[in-house]
Amino acid sequence: MEYLAPERDAHFLMFDLFRAREIWEQIPAFQDFSEDLIQAVVAEGGRLAAEVIAPTNQGGDQQGCQWQDGEVTTPEGFKEAFAQLAAGGWLGLAGNPGYGGQGMPKMLACLVEEMLWAANTSLYLYGTLTVGASLCIDTHGTEQQKTLYLPRLYSGEWTGAMALTEAHAGTDLGIMRTKAEPQADGSYRITGTKIFITGGEHDLTENIVHLVLAKLPDAPAGSKGISLFIVPKFLVAEDGSLERRNQLASGSIEHKMGIRGSATSVMNYDGATGYLLGEQNQGLAAMFTMMNYERLSVGLQGLGAGELAYQQAAAYAGDRLQGRAPAGPQNPDAAADSLLVHPDVRRMLLAQRALAEGGRAFALFVGLQLDLAKYSEDEQVRAQAQVLSELLTPVAKAFLSDRGFDSAVLAQQVFGGHGYIQEWGVEQIVRDTRIAQIYEGTNGVQALDLIGRKVLRDGGASLRKFVDEMAQSEVAEGLQADLNDAFDRLIRTTASVAERAAGDANLPGAVSTDYLEMVGLTVYAWLWGRMAAIAPDDSFGEAKRLTARFFYDRLLPKCIGLEKSIEADTTALMTFADESF
Amino acid sequence: MEYLAPERDAHFLMFDLFRAREIWEQIPAFQDFSEDLIQAVVAEGGRLAAEVIAPTNQGGDQQGCQWQDGEVTTPEGFKEAFAQLAAGGWLGLAGNPGYGGQGMPKMLACLVEEMLWAANTSLYLYGTLTVGASLCIDTHGTEQQKTLYLPRLYSGEWTGAMALTEAHAGTDLGIMRTKAEPQADGSYRITGTKIFITGGEHDLTENIVHLVLAKLPDAPAGSKGISLFIVPKFLVAEDGSLERRNQLASGSIEHKMGIRGSATSVMNYDGATGYLLGEQNQGLAAMFTMMNYERLSVGLQGLGAGELAYQQAAAYAGDRLQGRAPAGPQNPDAAADSLLVHPDVRRMLLAQRALAEGGRAFALFVGLQLDLAKYSEDEQVRAQAQVLSELLTPVAKAFLSDRGFDSAVLAQQVFGGHGYIQEWGVEQIVRDTRIAQIYEGTNGVQALDLIGRKVLRDGGASLRKFVDEMAQSEVAEGLQADLNDAFDRLIRTTASVAERAAGDANLPGAVSTDYLEMVGLTVYAWLWGRMAAIAPDDSFGEAKRLTARFFYDRLLPKCIGLEKSIEADTTALMTFADESF
Repeated sequence: MEYLAPERDAHFLMFDLFRAREIWEQIPAFQDFSEDLIQAVVAEGGRLAAEVIAPTNQGGDQQGCQWQDGEVTTPEGFKEAFAQLAAGGWLGLAGNPGYGGQGMPKMLACLVEEMLWAANTSLYLYGTLTVGASLCIDTHGTEQQKTLYLPRLYSGEWTGAMALTEAHAGTDLGIMRTKAEPQADGSYRITGTKIFITGGEHDLTENIVHLVLAKLPDAPAGSKGISLFIVPKFLVAEDGSLERRNQLASGSIEHKMGIRGSATSVMNYDGATGYLLGEQNQGLAAMFTMMNYERLSVGLQGLGAGELAYQQAAAYAGDRLQGRAPAGPQNPDAAADSLLVHPDVRRMLLAQRALAEGGRAFALFVGLQLDLAKYSEDEQVRAQAQVLSELLTPVAKAFLSDRGFDSAVLAQQVFGGHGYIQEWGVEQIVRDTRIAQIYEGTNGVQALDLIGRKVLRDGGASLRKFVDEMAQSEVAEGLQADLNDAFDRLIRTTASVAERAAGDANLPGAVSTDYLEMVGLTVYAWLWGRMAAIAPDDSFGEAKRLTARFFYDRLLPKCIGLEKSIEADTTALMTFADESF
Repeated sequence: MEYLAPERDAHFLMFDLFRAREIWEQIPAFQDFSEDLIQAVVAEGGRLAAEVIAPTNQGGDQQGCQWQDGEVTTPEGFKEAFAQLAAGGWLGLAGNPGYGGQGMPKMLACLVEEMLWAANTSLYLYGTLTVGASLCIDTHGTEQQKTLYLPRLYSGEWTGAMALTEAHAGTDLGIMRTKAEPQADGSYRITGTKIFITGGEHDLTENIVHLVLAKLPDAPAGSKGISLFIVPKFLVAEDGSLERRNQLASGSIEHKMGIRGSATSVMNYDGATGYLLGEQNQGLAAMFTMMNYERLSVGLQGLGAGELAYQQAAAYAGDRLQGRAPAGPQNPDAAADSLLVHPDVRRMLLAQRALAEGGRAFALFVGLQLDLAKYSEDEQVRAQAQVLSELLTPVAKAFLSDRGFDSAVLAQQVFGGHGYIQEWGVEQIVRDTRIAQIYEGTNGVQALDLIGRKVLRDGGASLRKFVDEMAQSEVAEGLQADLNDAFDRLIRTTASVAERAAGDANLPGAVSTDYLEMVGLTVYAWLWGRMAAIAPDDSFGEAKRLTARFFYDRLLPKCIGLEKSIEADTTALMTFADESF
């Protein structure tokens, strides 16, 4: 499968749409990043993704990971490709420069991540877990922990893994059973079994740093009694050299629908030595500080998959000759016209394109908020960006991954029967992408987070404020009226939900998924309106304007039905008898 | 995976909703079929599906088919299970009694097919192709062909295969290259390569009857120059005994996303002996006479998958304890409540249920039209039913398979991470069902068929007549207003499309997929309104009424957005430059 890094769009979004240079002027940490430097990083990341990582994608799926006696072998070529990813410093791209990271903007990291996800989802999973573990240690670790672990994670010498889920407890972490017993030397003995541990065991690097959630003796019940521990596969001396093997082992790996090159382990911690990360009983909160980043990353997985799927479908549709245009042959000398003459095929391609480019703009906007929240010198800017990033993170995770899956399914449909067989690789995109809707908090959980914690908790104030800000933007003329309708609809719907939720505890959960979709579509509409307004006078700009029009014509109207659906009360939903299911 | 045949719903639909006994009174061929007999057939079919076929499903997926030197080995247990399916006469259930078929109503066959698809999609594919080939031979064959082939296909002694697609020509059959040369003895030599041939080669039966589309020398160009041939794997003597192996062979089998127990062959016909079926150059028309049945069957595949997925998700949600109800613990003695307390989980389950039961009602309604078109003594009834079955067939194929896929994806979401691993079988349902949206004419092709041939060709008259008839039904009181809105919307949208299509050849294709979805939702709304009106006063009936309410609350509103989307003109879609994709 060929993959082309979306460099032109990246430049347009960063420097024309979001005017990143002007923003970075205000951020001391970003002063030195010129447009040229950033574009060079995007280009180099794109080259790595397309030329080094992507070639391992289909083979990795077909070969999968192998487990034997607790050891996991990754597919051929993964070790070499990961070594290049690591050697380029890509895992430390947005990392803390005090410990070997490159301190570059998250906005840029978003673009690079999208490309790495697109190139090989399974392979980049080992990377994103490493980035996540670094972030967690950087935020909550002691100076000693940071000095010991961060440089080796940023360099990809070691990788990270997150151990949350237990067999009986997926979303509901409060009921977990893994325990941590304090030892005389200040360490802890960790005992328990975790499942679905991505990269819990593999052969890419010599050490794996597990971050494990566990309960201390006499910890409070439920989610307030969970602590977080660093549990390395090999214990680490003060100079960073490896000591004895820790008491943890992969019990087996899962046979999965997709991401078959990513090893998903059952992990047994059998009195393993662990080190408290952050405060006792604050483990969930510590995990959540990096959730905004991790959830955005999973959204980027969906985005990368959607872009990859679009590229495959567009190329196939242009090459494949079948049937004739509705108004008569366009290519009369050949036996048939290309698939591009068929309006229904164009509908699918433009939907994919509108979702990929709209999604990229959205992801970069969220990345920008994370940068502002972390690096701005203006306290008010930091606070506002923090609120906005928290509001939009569940939307980014769920809406980007849902639309990435839609796009992969659309690509399959454009390919017809060829989309269903292994050879072309498109069915793999569908299988690989499906997990993004499930892990890192299912998309249903994201929708509950959005409507509960992020919207209703402050009575909808943050949401209204964001809509007010969006409404200040200049958008393309022909789209303004529909965009205003969309804003009004979202405000109206939010108010209605808030009012009804006061009298019905089930209402938020009943409408959460539809509500999140309405938010996602409305934000994309805003971004498409802005993109269409500033698109240049060339073929790139013309494509932008037409795709924007398509989005407004064909995708945005879904909100009208969603509003009606959200208006329903919860009677049918909640009075349906359990035993009748 | 456990599977329960939906016997109670089957009885409700056939005898309460559609009053099948009263209709069958008017059909001499069906006089003898008592309610008890029919229910016994459903029960026996359900037993076969659940106890004999379903146990081969997961193993078949994991093992897949093996190809060696042109021979295909099906997964363990398939041969025995198929033998029981065949021995029970199930493949001849609705077959011509003059040649060994049982002549039972298609409406009943729909129910049985749904159960067989649900039990093992890969295995039943060998069956449905056999049913399809029988139907084609029964309709177009000579007396000799019928006598020779039908009894052995109905009994499952032999299976059927359909060879249409070539590597360069999927949907566009007019450009196929396989040729048929007349021989002195009245037979033809068939030469060419076909791809994606389901059941083209396998080890379940001793003979395979291929129906092959090919071109005669000097045939007209395009789709009017295609003829249909019977090309058996082993030539058949007049007494039905097998003679020499014919010159055809499987060149390879595909590695597919799903239906991995179904062998999909590249078939090489290398001067194979074939016999003309029907008239010269009328091959496509001959194929199309059975299309209504085959396409409905693929819709039933989606329906069966959706029901199976629903059953798995509902059982899992009831068993799995996680989190607490929004209004406080429902199961305070346990560490957590079941997933059924979560409104968003109920939303997913009720959506699946509304689609499965609505889909079953719809499928039986289409089956009833096929019965009336074939067996009614009243010419006008026959003609009307024929029009209606043709109108609704593309909807049945596409809408049932699309919603079946949706349901499988929803089930995965209810299962969370467990929905992504092989163990539970849910991810297999997603993979197996995906093909139903592609083969037998992609769902995009179905949508074009609906809007072009079935709706616009008569200026929307058939569609309007059907809506008028639906509007005569008694529906549950609280649903009437929304249903009237849905009818009005469909009529209004149809008129708008017809008017605009007159000036824009691209308009029908641009809106076809959205239009088909609107038709599907509207017809389901009609059926749910009727079901809710007659549902009995017990828990079964209460579940029906609440599911109907849910459908109107949460699924039907999508039509409002679809109307708006269909209103758009084709400018953005059609002026987007080919080279910008």
